[in-house]
Amino acid sequence: MEKIIQDMALKARKASRKVATAGTAAKNRALALLCESLAADREMIQAENQKDVDAARERGLSAAMVDRLTLSDKVMDAMIQGVREVALLPDPVGTMGEVRLRPSGIRVGKMRIPLGVIAMIYESRPNVTVDAAALCLKAGNAVILRGGSEAFYSNMALAKTVQSALEGAGLPAHAVQVLPMTDREALPFLLQQEELIDLVIPRGGEGLIRFVTENSRIPVLKHYKGVCHLYVDVDADKEKALAILMNAKCQRPGVCNALETLLVHEKVADSFLPLAAEALEGAGVLLRGCPRTCALVKNAEPATDADWPSEYLDLILSVKVVDSLDDAMDHISLYNSGHTESIITENWSRAWRFIREVDASAVMVNASTRFNDGGELGLGAEIGISTSKLHAYGPMGLVELTTEKFVVFGDGQVRA
Amino acid sequence: MEKIIQDMALKARKASRKVATAGTAAKNRALALLCESLAADREMIQAENQKDVDAARERGLSAAMVDRLTLSDKVMDAMIQGVREVALLPDPVGTMGEVRLRPSGIRVGKMRIPLGVIAMIYESRPNVTVDAAALCLKAGNAVILRGGSEAFYSNMALAKTVQSALEGAGLPAHAVQVLPMTDREALPFLLQQEELIDLVIPRGGEGLIRFVTENSRIPVLKHYKGVCHLYVDVDADKEKALAILMNAKCQRPGVCNALETLLVHEKVADSFLPLAAEALEGAGVLLRGCPRTCALVKNAEPATDADWPSEYLDLILSVKVVDSLDDAMDHISLYNSGHTESIITENWSRAWRFIREVDASAVMVNASTRFNDGGELGLGAEIGISTSKLHAYGPMGLVELTTEKFVVFGDGQVRA
Repeated sequence: MEKIIQDMALKARKASRKVATAGTAAKNRALALLCESLAADREMIQAENQKDVDAARERGLSAAMVDRLTLSDKVMDAMIQGVREVALLPDPVGTMGEVRLRPSGIRVGKMRIPLGVIAMIYESRPNVTVDAAALCLKAGNAVILRGGSEAFYSNMALAKTVQSALEGAGLPAHAVQVLPMTDREALPFLLQQEELIDLVIPRGGEGLIRFVTENSRIPVLKHYKGVCHLYVDVDADKEKALAILMNAKCQRPGVCNALETLLVHEKVADSFLPLAAEALEGAGVLLRGCPRTCALVKNAEPATDADWPSEYLDLILSVKVVDSLDDAMDHISLYNSGHTESIITENWSRAWRFIREVDASAVMVNASTRFNDGGELGLGAEIGISTSKLHAYGPMGLVELTTEKFVVFGDGQVRA
Repeated sequence: MEKIIQDMALKARKASRKVATAGTAAKNRALALLCESLAADREMIQAENQKDVDAARERGLSAAMVDRLTLSDKVMDAMIQGVREVALLPDPVGTMGEVRLRPSGIRVGKMRIPLGVIAMIYESRPNVTVDAAALCLKAGNAVILRGGSEAFYSNMALAKTVQSALEGAGLPAHAVQVLPMTDREALPFLLQQEELIDLVIPRGGEGLIRFVTENSRIPVLKHYKGVCHLYVDVDADKEKALAILMNAKCQRPGVCNALETLLVHEKVADSFLPLAAEALEGAGVLLRGCPRTCALVKNAEPATDADWPSEYLDLILSVKVVDSLDDAMDHISLYNSGHTESIITENWSRAWRFIREVDASAVMVNASTRFNDGGELGLGAEIGISTSKLHAYGPMGLVELTTEKFVVFGDGQVRA
């Protein structure tokens, strides 16, 4: 097993040198071919996917799980559309910012370059295989993908299609490889290839991410849980607050930028909370409140200590009445997941204190937490949302899959 | 021991929240007070330093080692001047780049924020204690410093001075702490505080850096060895090549951006190499050459396989004749340390191929490798040169000790 993984990493390293210097046209040609192949191979891919779906049903996985696994025509179409969008994004590789003239006479700039080899470890839907492959390739990286066991046949079929597209565009097939083993015992071998792999991106449950962090000698960019808060300040516009609350909690409760905790200033709690509770309950949201909340909202259950750090990913919301902005920020700091925090206020000074002092990958004023997304923030497609502070904090698009090197343009200069 | 370290990390975390939001004026006041205190406490610091120096002499450390350890008046003056320069650098914290209007109506920008808590692990001169403290503080971070055992008394004395300056400026003393233990057994406890520490920067020998990488759950930015190459192309201007060669190899051979290997195109080897060898030998440089080099330079010793990956940090140079630019780039890729690579050529296309294709934190054309330095490249003071690709690649100044968060300015927007 160790041998197979090391061999894959070596091949990825070698391929990464080729894709790193490949032109934009060649990379886009590979992506265009991938769209064609995904359409042409649709039946083959869906037949392989059916094996995974059948196995999942046999093992008694929930209907929701089976649904997430299924590569329906609609999912295949969305996958193809996703690849098309990546092809349209500007290529970050080789771009340079300002070039400055230094007192020594050298000119200094920074050039964007690929990271090299990326390992992506995920548990989710098989379409992640294609999304991640397209993003890594466009950013000039080679990628080793390790999906979940329940999507094994689907992922292997998709890998085959991706590799044929790469070869059709004159790029090395090993630039995208899927690990042909899905047991967790294989992971440490992958995570110790620190000479060959530059970055590991785990996406999935807390257990997987912890396992990867503890076993990796390679830098890890964590896509972790989001315990997002909305703080309704004493000077909040209540209409805006209500609209944002409903959007943040209810539009798509199962995603990481959905709201999990509502904090309300004590001076507006009695006017705002009953109103908010009515709307939330109308949308099927269960409330778990602090004692002051429960006194104002009769259907709220009492919250326990387990509620405040919880990422429900469901139609449940914890609610707390706070004394002040400082009280709200202390609560956020205590249960900080580094994801998304939003304040609703018309007060300039408190808005700016919140912006400056809250530590999260995205801090918002009078906007829904749901905006923490690569597309909405202007990055284009994203490979995940980093809650690590190093390298990237927040949504990671093409630029975040690259780094910069210094370039010195000289004319014979030596150091004095 | 574990308890002490965890307690320090907790205090650092708490202090980091205060320094993260401290204004530029308060941080600069602390740095100004530090300059004053270093001058006022000079005798106390030098008396403590004398204990380290005496112990080093007793243990029979080399004169060079004792010299590096000694806080002479000259070293103290340079240390104070260094802090003064950090105070003059622009504060990166709170700055924002372009703010864009998105189709949804939200305005999106990125704000620079401190990383949080940094652990710096080093073996070198005690003045690193003050340099690192000043840089981390100015960037709004708390820092835990762990110096070498041979500088224990010096580092504890310097920490005391730094902490009194912090308190004088109304900042928390725990923003800068020196670990009161220097045995390697203590390190793993520090390196597992991944909930409290955001970044580890090891500086020192290969053994230390490997130990830190293998034992850390916290992201590590490596300041690793530099095996820097100079490639003299067939179209090199020989005068520039010679001047740059001498500067890169001889100006300060003991530093990581000094030259270790010279690569010469076969068509200019017979005219350039004897000339270069004469100048190098005149400066006391020993040459270790490939067979073709040894045929042209009579005093060159034959190089062995151990020479090409070597960072000599001394007046020794390995020399190889290559067939082409590709041959040179293959050699560089094989022995790549990700530090600094330079080409000497007047040929436009080959210069640009070298810039695009060589993977190093700094790639240079017609300039000395010695320019890979925070001051020379325009970053101001540096905390080290990262040869890791994640987060920072190359010299790390104040900006590299920070990260960015997204800020969303809304007016009630919800996601469609």
